[in-house]
Amino acid sequence: MDDVHIRLLDKVALKDPVLVEGLPGVGNVGKLAADYLKEKLGAKPLATFYSKFFPPQVYVSEEGLIRLVSNDLSYRKGVVSGSRDLLILGGDYQGISPEGQYELTERVLEFCHRQFATREVYTLAGFAQGHVVENHRVLGAATTPALVETMKKFGVVFSRNDPGGGLIGASGLFLGLGQLFGMEGVCLMGETSGYFVDPRSAEAVLKVLTKVLGIELNFSDLEGKAKEIDRIAQRIHETDQKVSEASNAPREDLGYIG
Amino acid sequence: MDDVHIRLLDKVALKDPVLVEGLPGVGNVGKLAADYLKEKLGAKPLATFYSKFFPPQVYVSEEGLIRLVSNDLSYRKGVVSGSRDLLILGGDYQGISPEGQYELTERVLEFCHRQFATREVYTLAGFAQGHVVENHRVLGAATTPALVETMKKFGVVFSRNDPGGGLIGASGLFLGLGQLFGMEGVCLMGETSGYFVDPRSAEAVLKVLTKVLGIELNFSDLEGKAKEIDRIAQRIHETDQKVSEASNAPREDLGYIG
Amino acid sequence: MDDVHIRLLDKVALKDPVLVEGLPGVGNVGKLAADYLKEKLGAKPLATFYSKFFPPQVYVSEEGLIRLVSNDLSYRKGVVSGSRDLLILGGDYQGISPEGQYELTERVLEFCHRQFATREVYTLAGFAQGHVVENHRVLGAATTPALVETMKKFGVVFSRNDPGGGLIGASGLFLGLGQLFGMEGVCLMGETSGYFVDPRSAEAVLKVLTKVLGIELNFSDLEGKAKEIDRIAQRIHETDQKVSEASNAPREDLGYIG
Amino acid sequence: MDDVHIRLLDKVALKDPVLVEGLPGVGNVGKLAADYLKEKLGAKPLATFYSKFFPPQVYVSEEGLIRLVSNDLSYRKGVVSGSRDLLILGGDYQGISPEGQYELTERVLEFCHRQFATREVYTLAGFAQGHVVENHRVLGAATTPALVETMKKFGVVFSRNDPGGGLIGASGLFLGLGQLFGMEGVCLMGETSGYFVDPRSAEAVLKVLTKVLGIELNFSDLEGKAKEIDRIAQRIHETDQKVSEASNAPREDLGYIG
Repeated sequence: MDDVHIRLLDKVALKDPVLVEGLPGVGNVGKLAADYLKEKLGAKPLATFYSKFFPPQVYVSEEGLIRLVSNDLSYRKGVVSGSRDLLILGGDYQGISPEGQYELTERVLEFCHRQFATREVYTLAGFAQGHVVENHRVLGAATTPALVETMKKFGVVFSRNDPGGGLIGASGLFLGLGQLFGMEGVCLMGETSGYFVDPRSAEAVLKVLTKVLGIELNFSDLEGKAKEIDRIAQRIHETDQKVSEASNAPREDLGYIG
Repeated sequence: MDDVHIRLLDKVALKDPVLVEGLPGVGNVGKLAADYLKEKLGAKPLATFYSKFFPPQVYVSEEGLIRLVSNDLSYRKGVVSGSRDLLILGGDYQGISPEGQYELTERVLEFCHRQFATREVYTLAGFAQGHVVENHRVLGAATTPALVETMKKFGVVFSRNDPGGGLIGASGLFLGLGQLFGMEGVCLMGETSGYFVDPRSAEAVLKVLTKVLGIELNFSDLEGKAKEIDRIAQRIHETDQKVSEASNAPREDLGYIG
Repeated sequence: MDDVHIRLLDKVALKDPVLVEGLPGVGNVGKLAADYLKEKLGAKPLATFYSKFFPPQVYVSEEGLIRLVSNDLSYRKGVVSGSRDLLILGGDYQGISPEGQYELTERVLEFCHRQFATREVYTLAGFAQGHVVENHRVLGAATTPALVETMKKFGVVFSRNDPGGGLIGASGLFLGLGQLFGMEGVCLMGETSGYFVDPRSAEAVLKVLTKVLGIELNFSDLEGKAKEIDRIAQRIHETDQKVSEASNAPREDLGYIG
Repeated sequence: MDDVHIRLLDKVALKDPVLVEGLPGVGNVGKLAADYLKEKLGAKPLATFYSKFFPPQVYVSEEGLIRLVSNDLSYRKGVVSGSRDLLILGGDYQGISPEGQYELTERVLEFCHRQFATREVYTLAGFAQGHVVENHRVLGAATTPALVETMKKFGVVFSRNDPGGGLIGASGLFLGLGQLFGMEGVCLMGETSGYFVDPRSAEAVLKVLTKVLGIELNFSDLEGKAKEIDRIAQRIHETDQKVSEASNAPREDLGYIG
């Protein structure tokens, strides 16, 4: 078996497609955003990437059906401004070793480069602030000064100090290795606490992305998910308060749950 | 040396053979079941799989003879209903890294696919409940809805929530990668505490498997093994009680030993 | 993707070039020295080495531009005595696994061997003494007795006991693998405490190296960096004293910050 | 670079040579024995094995000369009964990963098989008893019943229970993989405490080996090394007693130092 096994699900010609990547990570922001985009745009399955760099694991559905863990590439035609097409990469895992990260990212990029001459990549991620985030800013990093300037016009924040140590994982690697394929790209990082999955941060990221790409998107379902997370957080907060009061201990402000 | 080295021990033509996998794992259920099946049916050695994905280890027999750790494929002719043949994969270890798991599973499947056009796989495993199990249910997961329905008729339980996180290891991977070879398959998981090797759970799994495949099997020896484990557990339980009483501490119910 | 991907940035013929290696390590001595040499001599970029043996990471500049982590080879013509040329290898990381260390070192050496028939390697490193170092001696290790004698004339110390367990990492490996390419070489290790990045140790190493190679170099900027580190250390020292006095505890001499 | 790089140091024809392996391990028994054999017989260097499965390390001699870590094959002509030749494998490390163990062992065996049609392997090792060993028995494991019987005649002990879990590492693997090259072999394990390097255990192993192979060997220097270790152990023992007495604590018998 190859290190990465690509199963082609559809034969399709795409017009200068933009690649959007969103895999599991901080606050699951990238995956939430990519999955939402895929679902709402009705993107169609194009290729599945299996790999020995994923855990040796199958998921079992409620119906008892197994599915080998993978990354998945979907496409949606004509949805990007200039009637360009869209490619969305999502999945269950990032590669579970440094070598796996490189190998998987490279194989996806190579596929998009060879099949569709993809020139543009957007990677979606969360940026953990370590405290509650009221106003989800979207931080950016890009491959060219021109892209930095364009992103600023869409409200993306380029901070001198964030992210300090650089980006670790797929969202950085898709840009770094993308350059070796002649691709330009942007990483959009939604601020998040880092303690919860964060649909609001995913929404912030998607709002920027859809504006940049000229995609129309309805955010109401994401809003619903966000409210559900809020309710869970609220319940934890209340339980915590009761425990604090009962024990007569001074109440600490657990502000990060909000 | 290849990552996996296959030593062929026999040249044989097999009729549409069903592959049954049982390797060490939770409660050793899968290995107990596969080894028992192999022994009772008098299956013959077909191929040995050596690999750098196993520990660098040899076993030494009571006679002082060494044997390199391996996985082993055996066959038994005409024992499956429709006078189909049977392949049994057992062995000392699963691959000791994620990469090794993928590589070994893939090589066994590829061998069965190329040599015998195997279309059907049954994987045997334990499912750890974390508490004593009185009635060893057999949980299932399968590759197709039709197989799920068939298994239900044989008493296999398909639970909405179990296994929650999916299956990790060979028993899941043989199904997941098997699909890439066009194979259909079922994982049969015997409920077990997870604290002891569990011949009774292996028996429960084998009873389903043999009914499904139309194999006749005598379970008395497995019953013997189960009683031996019971005696060991009982002795531990009694020792524990004496210690508890001697120390005058409140006796905790160590129910999981049963 | 190859395990190591070499991106050639310049086509150039070099005259019997000496290879100098300085990567991150103890006290960052090697990297500080190599980077300073590169900057002061105005060395030009020759090749970038990307690899799956580095972390899956990009750095983000203050302007928001990403850069994939790498090792980098630069060159400077005619600066070594005998009007020989110079190659400098620096970078963000050493390989993050033993296998990666071997693979990366071998690929850089092979490149220098094939392209320029490089015969001579100098590796720069820190040697951790575990206590404050007033007088930064430069310890040595070499591939031939003749090189040992030559280095002694330049003040390099060859100690019976240091380094006791040998050299671990790139600085040793460039010499050990270099021999397989027919290269001779020296490792220059600046003594350092091991607690701080140590520009003074880098200066000591560079002073020996430049004398050996007949390179003229201005050390004033390195002196500036050293003073900055001194100031930081001094501040930590003072804070520590105040804490000690306030707590009335017997003041321990934190001599290693000195 | 290949995973294992073989540097040939001599061209020689050997007569049905016996391969003896002794690498670092429990009590360093195998390495002590192989190195002593090599030195006393004046064996000549034949090949060096470098590998990315060793640590990325060079040793530095007292003269300041570096040497890349390796395994080394030496030969001695006509020293085995029947005027057969001898091959000795020693070195700095065993492979540092399971994969490395397999790969290195396989490459050495393949080399001996191809170059010299080697048919017989003896591996030397220590067997840790966890307590002081007065009378160093030599335990055995072999590839054939005939070899077991032969070894018994030379006083080798084949114990029902030892080694219980089999042999892990090079000494077992040379036999297990050796079988795949059609080689027969024996592992000789000298009993040792496991707390010290143990020249007496190495002597016991060598005494059996030399009798089996008909090699004449003078053991006086090994006796000297053993006495040196005794002196060190004695000093630790005395220091320990003084500490015990001074603290008035009940003296525990540190019998394992002997």
